[in-house]
Amino acid sequence: MSVPSAPPHSSTAPTAVTVLGLGRMGSALAAAFLAAGHPTTVWNRSPGKADELVARGARRAGSVAEAVAAAPLVVVCVADDPAVHQLLDPLGDALAGRTLVNLTTGTSAQARANAAWAKERGAAFLDGAIMAVPEDIATDDAVLLYSGPRALFDEFEETLRVLSPAGTTHLGEDAGLAALHDLSLLALMWGVLNSFLHGAALLGTAGVRAETFAPLASRMVKVVAGYVTAAAPEVDAGSYPGGDATLTVHLEAMRHLAEESEALGVNAELPRFFQLLADRAIADGHAGSGYSALVEQFRKP
Amino acid sequence: MSVPSAPPHSSTAPTAVTVLGLGRMGSALAAAFLAAGHPTTVWNRSPGKADELVARGARRAGSVAEAVAAAPLVVVCVADDPAVHQLLDPLGDALAGRTLVNLTTGTSAQARANAAWAKERGAAFLDGAIMAVPEDIATDDAVLLYSGPRALFDEFEETLRVLSPAGTTHLGEDAGLAALHDLSLLALMWGVLNSFLHGAALLGTAGVRAETFAPLASRMVKVVAGYVTAAAPEVDAGSYPGGDATLTVHLEAMRHLAEESEALGVNAELPRFFQLLADRAIADGHAGSGYSALVEQFRKP
Ligand SMILES: NC(=O)c1ccc[n+]([C@@H]2O[C@H](COP(=O)([O-])OP(=O)(O)OC[C@H]3O[C@@H](n4cnc5c(N)ncnc54)[C@H](OP(=O)(O)O)[C@@H]3O)[C@@H](O)[C@H]2O)c1
Ligand SMILES: NC(=O)c1ccc[n+]([C@@H]2O[C@H](COP(=O)([O-])OP(=O)(O)OC[C@H]3O[C@@H](n4cnc5c(N)ncnc54)[C@H](OP(=O)(O)O)[C@@H]3O)[C@@H](O)[C@H]2O)c1
Repeated sequence: MSVPSAPPHSSTAPTAVTVLGLGRMGSALAAAFLAAGHPTTVWNRSPGKADELVARGARRAGSVAEAVAAAPLVVVCVADDPAVHQLLDPLGDALAGRTLVNLTTGTSAQARANAAWAKERGAAFLDGAIMAVPEDIATDDAVLLYSGPRALFDEFEETLRVLSPAGTTHLGEDAGLAALHDLSLLALMWGVLNSFLHGAALLGTAGVRAETFAPLASRMVKVVAGYVTAAAPEVDAGSYPGGDATLTVHLEAMRHLAEESEALGVNAELPRFFQLLADRAIADGHAGSGYSALVEQFRKP
Repeated sequence: MSVPSAPPHSSTAPTAVTVLGLGRMGSALAAAFLAAGHPTTVWNRSPGKADELVARGARRAGSVAEAVAAAPLVVVCVADDPAVHQLLDPLGDALAGRTLVNLTTGTSAQARANAAWAKERGAAFLDGAIMAVPEDIATDDAVLLYSGPRALFDEFEETLRVLSPAGTTHLGEDAGLAALHDLSLLALMWGVLNSFLHGAALLGTAGVRAETFAPLASRMVKVVAGYVTAAAPEVDAGSYPGGDATLTVHLEAMRHLAEESEALGVNAELPRFFQLLADRAIADGHAGSGYSALVEQFRKP
């Protein structure tokens, strides 16, 4: 374990950082640390990707072991969990006394397994999820989520804030939380994009361009962000008063969307899937409930 | 056809309006016209629902025919299209010379049929869609979409603005456009809510409350509203450069979400459906394309 108040990561001297993996995301992370004045050591499997960072002042490590030895804080961001292990498993005890922050996308099961794996090797461990594209790293648009020991997060928070000045969030002690949130938030993205693309296909049949539809769609999405806030207490309470529109009303409109899609030669699977979920909730007695009642369907395997 | 510059709908004297249907939405519409000083005649199948509006100054019509005779602008907002016809079909030519604005939710086929139906009866016709809950009527949060003759919209725009001061939009001459936009925008709502509820179910297995997840979800949804704007020109151009994440990268994360869901006993149909769409696009040669390439899948019946 690293010692909170001692150099090289006191609040006076910027903490030295190592970044393993210099793909699109890893390069952005390393560049941000460098720009913020942190001594930054980098390593990538294909060494050429380090060149630009080295030209800007990063130190190139000749091996993973050398990279890990160079700093108390080691950030890893590679393609996936198997890549993390191909990289780190050969290290043996070289990680002892280091703090490993894994920003590689993975599942909660992988994150929990990695936390145990790090502990066996004497390393402290935080799992993280990057809710941002590389260009947004170090801007106020970046959100990075962390899970694992709170004390460890507190110790390195100042350094981690370099990556997401307005969105550095600790979710809890359970190492799996960052991955669970990551995937749940990505699902929101896919949900929005699928509906937008379905709508663009539908409106395309009437000669409406996606660029014409986009401002209305974008406005609607922002309005719906507020519905999420309104739905949450209903989900927690297990009571779904419904308010302005019951599931019966929603189902009717979903049927319209499916029929429009079929009539216009557009794929109707998305609205049919919406209908299926609403049908099941209604069969469970929720005809007069609000939309949040669907959470009970999602809870069933 | 009504005469643009003549009373009772000149810009000096507020246009007289009739509202047929005083359910949750119709009542809000009538109340808004009343509050804005428009002489407002109301009718509802169950007469009791008019009482409160009459107490506030609305005129109660004893029949649909009497209601239609009372104003040049007739707004109908009942449960569905069959209800519209049960209400208006018996009227014969009583609609001649009136402008009918149908704010009842329906399909584009119904809207186009209603435009033809109104024309046969000598009535002018606009179809409309209400993208708002009743409480938001007459506030800046209300968006009401209209389609049909532009000149007719222009003639009554000032009156219609009472319902949605900041969001009164004419979409085009084709009467079906309001319904098509309505359903496409509702799909965005269902897309967001389904993903939120799926995420709430997933995070619930780790003891995370929906109210804890909601602020992050809401923030993500607002960020994704911007991705919609970015996707639109790609959809129109039929070229999907991909930018930061290819469909292959998305598919990998979708697989994680499906596996997490299954491992945690949460319904995995939503992520499996996401995967299915991405799989098909990749099979069509879009492994290296961005997410917008999926529009081609939605365009297939
Ligand atoms: N890009 C984004 O917008 C974004 C957003 C959020 C999260 N993420 C996550 O960030 C991580 C990295 O993404 P990226 O966009 O940087 O991907 P990328 O540009 O494809 O880079 C992949 C990186 O992983 C390395 N790698 C792959 N297999 C390896 C192995 N077996 N051993 C060692 N290194 C290996 C690659 O090294 P080589 O250069 O030698 O191939 C490269 O550095 C992923 O988990 C991704 O989900 C990305
Ligand atoms: N509420 C919302 O948040 C919302 C949002 C956007 C759009 N809309 C749309 O607005 C329309 C009305 O919705 P609402 O919320 O006001 O529904 P509601 O509260 O259930 O009211 C339904 C209305 O339709 C009337 N009606 C039903 N069948 C009829 C028939 N055969 N003949 C005559 N009248 C009939 C009812 O009359 P009785 O009182 O006699 O039953 C009542 O006035 C729907 O198309 C809905 O999709 C609603």
